[in-house]
Parts: sequence; structure tokens; C-alpha cells
Amino acid sequence: MNYCQSCGSAVNLSIPDGDNRVRYVCNNCGGIHYENPKIVAGSLPVWENRVLLCKRAIEPRNDYWTLPAGFMENGETLEQAAARESVEEANASLENMRLYTVVSLPHISQVYMMFLADLKNTDFYPGEESLETKLFAEEDIPWDTLAFKTIHFTLEHFFVDRKKGVFPLHNSTITKKNH
Amino acid sequence: MNYCQSCGSAVNLSIPDGDNRVRYVCNNCGGIHYENPKIVAGSLPVWENRVLLCKRAIEPRNDYWTLPAGFMENGETLEQAAARESVEEANASLENMRLYTVVSLPHISQVYMMFLADLKNTDFYPGEESLETKLFAEEDIPWDTLAFKTIHFTLEHFFVDRKKGVFPLHNSTITKKNH
Repeated sequence: MNYCQSCGSAVNLSIPDGDNRVRYVCNNCGGIHYENPKIVAGSLPVWENRVLLCKRAIEPRNDYWTLPAGFMENGETLEQAAARESVEEANASLENMRLYTVVSLPHISQVYMMFLADLKNTDFYPGEESLETKLFAEEDIPWDTLAFKTIHFTLEHFFVDRKKGVFPLHNSTITKKNH
Repeated sequence: MNYCQSCGSAVNLSIPDGDNRVRYVCNNCGGIHYENPKIVAGSLPVWENRVLLCKRAIEPRNDYWTLPAGFMENGETLEQAAARESVEEANASLENMRLYTVVSLPHISQVYMMFLADLKNTDFYPGEESLETKLFAEEDIPWDTLAFKTIHFTLEHFFVDRKKGVFPLHNSTITKKNH
């Protein structure tokens, strides 16, 4: 950040009065420009004994497999964001959505929030950001070509929990070291 | 937003290529400036049969009672953000933190994420943003002077769940209508 988005003057890094962190502050109008973590909302769509994965058509991790997920937008609920991403990436309709994994990624200032969900039908097909959309049984999951650690974390818990028949919330942190 | 924070030129609202939403786009450098929901991280600190509330010293809702909570900062985990807020607002140390309520507020583009937690001790006292910090038994909760619906939602679930002895995650939405 170089310029104030409000008045267009140069900004400087400084600690505002009453604050304890360095912020971008405008030299002219005094506006303070906060930057905060972003939410990535997504889902683990299930059909009978299989789960829906999407092969990414975009960077980062082009050509790797992922669960449908993306940045939550202003004006949405978490469920709406996760359902929208499943449509955009896989034209997949969800029902019975339950918040399932919450993962903080402090090194990139993101929080993943993944819903366990049932697919309404199998009429899914790749959206613009996907090369392929496909149902996988546990034994066929492409563990070595998953796009992100958060996806690995969510799938791993799902297959363990499914054996127990209970799906409690899993809240965790993935840092740069184990990313 | 009037100016590009990168190059200082004027921005316009338009739909970028490959996108389906209106964004602030720079007329000069083409930079796209996304705006996304913010996370409010907080806690419900418990000591024996009582819970810790803070009387707000700042707007909005100055002089109303709340649970310690505030905007998550870049570089933090959810737990770190919630624990920091409990220190800033009540100088309260937490342990045994468990994610407990998650509430989407789409009309103000926020998501509240509240942790159930045990107080380590009763050496709490008001921080700069609080007028008073105090433990309340269920029968003494000031329901009519709570600051926010999210706080009401979290406390209400807690007292119901405590009777059952289980504290599952509660994920919900509060809209402008019921705000």
C-alpha cells in the first residue's frame, strides 16, 4: 500500500493513537487503513461413499486436486459462500451443510472454513476454474496430488470420522513449517 | 474507495475479466481492489459457575455489556486473536479454549467466532476499552443491556448447553432483520 484509497495522498506506516500495531496511515487526511485475515469458505461434498474433488485449472497449484473453496465475499453468510464456490468450481448443488473444519493459516493471514455437505445429485461438471470434477472413494483419493494442506486435513478427518459415525468440528492451525 | 492504493490513480467500479462481481479497478495500473468480510474473534470466559462480561468504554454500544472480542489481525490464529482480545479488554488469561459459536452477519460483512474458555484466575481488570469487568451467574446476566445479538446468542446457548453438559459448535446467521 502506497496511497490513501480515500484521498489519494501518500501513506506511511505508523502506530495510530490508542493502537498497538503498525498501520498504513494517510499523511493528509489521517485515514487508517486496516488489513485483516481473509476467510476461505468451502465444502466437502459427499455422494454415497464417495467425495467430490476438483482438479484446479488456475494457479496456485494448477493441475492439483482440491475441494471447492474460495474467498468469502462481502454480504454473504459462510454457507452461502461455500455453496457458491461449489457451483462456480463444480456446478454442484449442496444440502445438509454442517461446519466441519476451521483452519487458521497465520503465515498467509487466511482462515479456511469447510462444510461437510451432501450432493443433491450427480449433475456436476467443471466450472471455469476446474479442469475436471470427479467422485473419489477413499482408496482412490490422490493424496500425493492434493492442492493444499487444508484439503488434506479435511479429507483425513472425514475418513476417520466416517468410521466412527460422528463428525465433530475440527479446529486447527497450519503454519509455514507444516504447510 | 476513490484512489488506487498501489499507484494513487482514480479507481472505478467495474466487473474485471473472468469475474462476476463489481470491484474497485484502477484506471491506470489495472489493479483490482477486493474487499472481504472481517472476522471478529472472542471468548466466553468461565470461572466456576460464572462468566466474565466487560462493560464497553467505546462506541458502538458504549456502556453496554459484552464478551471480550474484536477484529482478528493479520498473522494471528483464531485462538491467538481471541486470547489477545481477552487480555486487551479484561486483562484475562484463558485456557482450554474450544471454538463454540460461529455467526455470519452478512449485512455488515462480519463473522463472529467465539471460543468457550476457562479463566486461569480471577486477576482480571478492565483494559482501556472497558469500564468494568465482572463475573456473572446465570440469574444475574444483564440480558437487556447486552451490546450485540452475537453476545446474546453465545450466552443463551451456553446456559442451555451447560444444563446438558455438552457444548457442541453452534453455527448461525444474524441478519439485519433480527439484528
